[in-house]
Amino acid sequence: MDKQAMAVRIVTGGWQAQVSALDSILGKLSDEQLDREISSSRNRGIYLLGHLTAVNDLMLPLLRFGEAIYPELQPIFVDAADKTVTELPPARQLREQWKTVNGKLQDHIKVLTADEWFLRHANISAEDFVREPHRNRLNVLLGRANHLSYHRGQFILLTNKS
Amino acid sequence: MDKQAMAVRIVTGGWQAQVSALDSILGKLSDEQLDREISSSRNRGIYLLGHLTAVNDLMLPLLRFGEAIYPELQPIFVDAADKTVTELPPARQLREQWKTVNGKLQDHIKVLTADEWFLRHANISAEDFVREPHRNRLNVLLGRANHLSYHRGQFILLTNKS
Repeated sequence: MDKQAMAVRIVTGGWQAQVSALDSILGKLSDEQLDREISSSRNRGIYLLGHLTAVNDLMLPLLRFGEAIYPELQPIFVDAADKTVTELPPARQLREQWKTVNGKLQDHIKVLTADEWFLRHANISAEDFVREPHRNRLNVLLGRANHLSYHRGQFILLTNKS
Repeated sequence: MDKQAMAVRIVTGGWQAQVSALDSILGKLSDEQLDREISSSRNRGIYLLGHLTAVNDLMLPLLRFGEAIYPELQPIFVDAADKTVTELPPARQLREQWKTVNGKLQDHIKVLTADEWFLRHANISAEDFVREPHRNRLNVLLGRANHLSYHRGQFILLTNKS
């Protein structure tokens, strides 16, 4: 394996590790615990689950893998803050959508060649990409893995909460 | 820039972005706010600051850059949980050590060649590294960037707390 392929393996492996770590926490949290705030007057777990599902879903078009599967989540969980939308989808539905989105992403991630990770993502024009070639798919995946980790540090606060 | 060097730039850039983002939050938190728990009965901000400083400091030997600067932080902030050590170092000292450690790391990061990132880290033997070549310095940096992001998601909960 050459060093380019090794670097891609490290970044994609890091992504998978973040998804698995969050899966593990979600598996331990009841729907009732997801309804709790992560800290006083802060986001609820259920909002964060919807938020991460929506953001990961939007990675499908951003990485030019295809259309978002659940675009209806964006207005609720990305554009709007928690507790501003009257009724959120039920936890059971969001848990399923979370799994579906990550499965679909993984289907694409595992077949992408090492070179294809260095192609531009969808939010930069071909002209700008010539000057900023680091704004590629690999960079998006690394940033979104950090995003998962950031919110995992918040989800963990719901464990052991009755 | 070839793709190997591009990948290294993406991962090191991601690390720097995490350090900067946490610096920004720390700059907004008073020492009094750092004394608060991030959530009821959870770690205090000051403990997390010491924890991240100690973990980043230990990256110096782990990345084979040199000795840890403040090894005395490890028993307090890595081996021991929060509120089990009677007296923590003052916030002012930890803030300075945080800056010093990250500055020292950055001095090494900026001069490392793209190839040197793919050499083994200090916690794997040369023999094992032959079979597991992804356990290299680049992988350590990516993992530690995720670690910063995880705890940044907790530090942010201290903002707006009186």
